[in-house]
Amino acid sequence: MEGEPTRIMLAVNESTIKGYPNASISSRKAFEWTLQKIVRSNTSGFKLLFLHVQVPDEDGFDDMDSVYASPEDFKNLRNRDRARGLHLLEFFVERCHAIGVGCEAWIKKGDPKEVICHEVKRVQPDFLVVGCRGLGPFQRVFVGTVSEFCVKHAECPVITIKRSAEETPQDPVDD
Amino acid sequence: MEGEPTRIMLAVNESTIKGYPNASISSRKAFEWTLQKIVRSNTSGFKLLFLHVQVPDEDGFDDMDSVYASPEDFKNLRNRDRARGLHLLEFFVERCHAIGVGCEAWIKKGDPKEVICHEVKRVQPDFLVVGCRGLGPFQRVFVGTVSEFCVKHAECPVITIKRSAEETPQDPVDD
Repeated sequence: MEGEPTRIMLAVNESTIKGYPNASISSRKAFEWTLQKIVRSNTSGFKLLFLHVQVPDEDGFDDMDSVYASPEDFKNLRNRDRARGLHLLEFFVERCHAIGVGCEAWIKKGDPKEVICHEVKRVQPDFLVVGCRGLGPFQRVFVGTVSEFCVKHAECPVITIKRSAEETPQDPVDD
Repeated sequence: MEGEPTRIMLAVNESTIKGYPNASISSRKAFEWTLQKIVRSNTSGFKLLFLHVQVPDEDGFDDMDSVYASPEDFKNLRNRDRARGLHLLEFFVERCHAIGVGCEAWIKKGDPKEVICHEVKRVQPDFLVVGCRGLGPFQRVFVGTVSEFCVKHAECPVITIKRSAEETPQDPVDD
């Protein structure tokens, strides 16, 4: 008797190095780990809830050389951001569809750590999976880490999946 | 194609209030949660590894009024400690056996947080589940928490399962 599927929320983001529209190394790893170690062959026993939080500032940085001449230009920009987020989620949703795991995916804007915890409160998953870069103490202080914040503040159990050493890019702050 | 089962280590301990040989509220909760939310009906996909760490000092406390007159008395004491630990593990192993989930269980002596991290390194489970009492900041500083230490130092992903509010005893430091 299986009852309702276990609802696993996965926080996913874009890669800082692999370019549009790739998932970050740690998001991808967290996703693969969840499939291999938790879902396994029991595809009907789980539902994956993908949350992508877009950071407004980060998107602005790419647009330093853009010229905005009309309200339309801003609308196009917003559409482009939206398209990027959708492409990211499409990767995960297509993969789930291919193996027959139920899923939902959505985009929010804001500070990832705050938004993730807010969405946990709203959606009440059984647990949250977050990828992390596995940075050393100095790098961690410098860039902050979403996973540590979620472990402390999310109102559900949280499991943090580190990238493996062989997947770590030359600059470990990249992902 | 399922391959090797996912190996989940569970750190379990005795209750401080329910008396010999009961599992603590948080150990029991972490175990039930793992069965309901992770294992579900896929009993052949998972193997549970139960580790119980006995704290030498704690056991000594109960023996303040005992009289030790011969080396035999100490041997009996050690046998009694061993029996308590075995009773605790028996609860979990019997439950696994009844539902058909593979398991292993063993006892170590020492500081639970250090021993758990050491055993993770040795046994290399896919992840570690630890129950926690969900104490407030003041109570936490006072008693220390095994789960926080493991989240930081264990060499595998860790998921911490809090007791529910309705299971919390009058004194939340009890378990």
